[in-house]
Amino acid sequence: MPQDPGRFTVGFDIGGTNMRAGLISDTGEIVRQLSAPTPGTAEELESGIADLVARLGTTHTIDAVGLAVAGFLDPACETVRFAPHLPWRDAPVRDRLSDRLELPIRLEHDANSAAWGEHRFGAAQGVDNWVLLAIGTGIGAALIADGEIYRGAHGTAPEFGHLRVVPDGRPCPCGKSGCLERYCSGTALVDTAREMAASGSFRNSSLLDEIRINPHALRGDVITSAARDRDPLGVAVMEDFSLWLGECLSMVADTLDPELIVIGGGVSRDTDIYLETAVAHFSTRIVGAGYRPLADVIPARLGGEAGMIGVADLARRAVAAR
Amino acid sequence: MPQDPGRFTVGFDIGGTNMRAGLISDTGEIVRQLSAPTPGTAEELESGIADLVARLGTTHTIDAVGLAVAGFLDPACETVRFAPHLPWRDAPVRDRLSDRLELPIRLEHDANSAAWGEHRFGAAQGVDNWVLLAIGTGIGAALIADGEIYRGAHGTAPEFGHLRVVPDGRPCPCGKSGCLERYCSGTALVDTAREMAASGSFRNSSLLDEIRINPHALRGDVITSAARDRDPLGVAVMEDFSLWLGECLSMVADTLDPELIVIGGGVSRDTDIYLETAVAHFSTRIVGAGYRPLADVIPARLGGEAGMIGVADLARRAVAAR
Repeated sequence: MPQDPGRFTVGFDIGGTNMRAGLISDTGEIVRQLSAPTPGTAEELESGIADLVARLGTTHTIDAVGLAVAGFLDPACETVRFAPHLPWRDAPVRDRLSDRLELPIRLEHDANSAAWGEHRFGAAQGVDNWVLLAIGTGIGAALIADGEIYRGAHGTAPEFGHLRVVPDGRPCPCGKSGCLERYCSGTALVDTAREMAASGSFRNSSLLDEIRINPHALRGDVITSAARDRDPLGVAVMEDFSLWLGECLSMVADTLDPELIVIGGGVSRDTDIYLETAVAHFSTRIVGAGYRPLADVIPARLGGEAGMIGVADLARRAVAAR
Repeated sequence: MPQDPGRFTVGFDIGGTNMRAGLISDTGEIVRQLSAPTPGTAEELESGIADLVARLGTTHTIDAVGLAVAGFLDPACETVRFAPHLPWRDAPVRDRLSDRLELPIRLEHDANSAAWGEHRFGAAQGVDNWVLLAIGTGIGAALIADGEIYRGAHGTAPEFGHLRVVPDGRPCPCGKSGCLERYCSGTALVDTAREMAASGSFRNSSLLDEIRINPHALRGDVITSAARDRDPLGVAVMEDFSLWLGECLSMVADTLDPELIVIGGGVSRDTDIYLETAVAHFSTRIVGAGYRPLADVIPARLGGEAGMIGVADLARRAVAAR
């Protein structure tokens, strides 16, 4: 059903520190954006959401609200079961917010929301079988199969970040050790740099000097920028990351066999310095390499706004389907 | 469309050493079964298949023929792209056999065929989202999603056997090292037993004595039988296998999130001695353990005949859909 272009949906990206709300047009454009710190209780969080919707509603007519949530939802997307950085626990967020706002509410997992945004308006338009890997603090993943979000039997598919790839490897906040995202994420860049710095075999590295002066100040973007300047430690860290990303891509291709893999998240800003190496490694690591087509691998296009744009579109579709 | 119960389909299980053909009723029963050595050239293999069909056709009317193939097919299931133990390479097997036999032919990947058999007549009847793990020489896998075989964009999903789980781990015939099936398969039992035997810390183990006398005679069933007799080395090997299987189950649950995981293949004969430990480990290894439902894990029911039964039913359906 065609939508009235004068009507808008609100898309929320609810993170552990801040929540952002965008007023989104039916072509996926962000017309206005607000943000606020994420409150620490469920009641405050829901009234904070209502407050942002009310503020966006003063200038535009709002049809529906979508919320991209970093956590587990039930398969019907009515309840937030568990979100590590948010106060919701088995919380029937959809109905509570719908009653409070008197608007249709659409909840969705954050990686699924971002995938939907890229599918409708970004890097994966027109591709029906593809995977989003959102690589930042950890690894988020989403599968679009036959043009729809694939969620599995319990709404949790697919997760790659906590597959164990190194027995007795780096400890993970999840309680396990050796998880894939400990080697293949923005956070992992820092860990790898510290480990390599401790091995001490890099001469003429200003990155190494920086780490020695203040190891706790190290951030992923310092490393990528050092790699751009051909700092030997920075280059070695990014080389290690590329190989792990190649490994990760092969795990995605073996288990899900998509046509396309889109790299999103914080590290997608720097694909120009690592993606070629990663894909070369990927091509040798899949089962039956040489006897099956290789998935394309490209960077995401909507950046940090993919989630709010995607979930707003899902909210709009839910209204249109009524 | 209801089928005439007096008509039969033939299901083939084409292995590297032998090929078996079953005459299958519409309720999945094997009415007659023949087998022959698998020939070494494509032409001989196809005439061998035609010969078995002709022999089964002397006593019963045959509607269609299904072939379960251990290899990569194209997504339309017309061509065998690559099968490591068979002579077909980019071979248009479906049309060639259909011309030769003047019967409808249905090709399918062997794990998908076995999954379809278990779905229609075995352990997974009535379950719409589930995974078969066929664990024997290696790990075969199939996903039934929304009641249909899930094959991904290129027809190769899902594969778990060659995910790398130990960097610089045991060498794999695939050319990589540390692949999951090197630790979690019937073959892996033998490797683990030899490694543990070399460590030499097992007293009063008759399995250890056997290995020392003739290390090359060791087979998986000798180990499971030793474990049943509480031989300390046999028990330790099965304990190690259980932990790896728990890891494998968590990788399946994280990536595909099925309702049910069915364990088939050679090792499924002995689930009574390892499955409880494996599932206990599995329950602690998934992402968000405790906040999401755990997939059920049960043994397959159709044994080594699941593939021929399944692919015969797929062939029957293909005829009914015409």
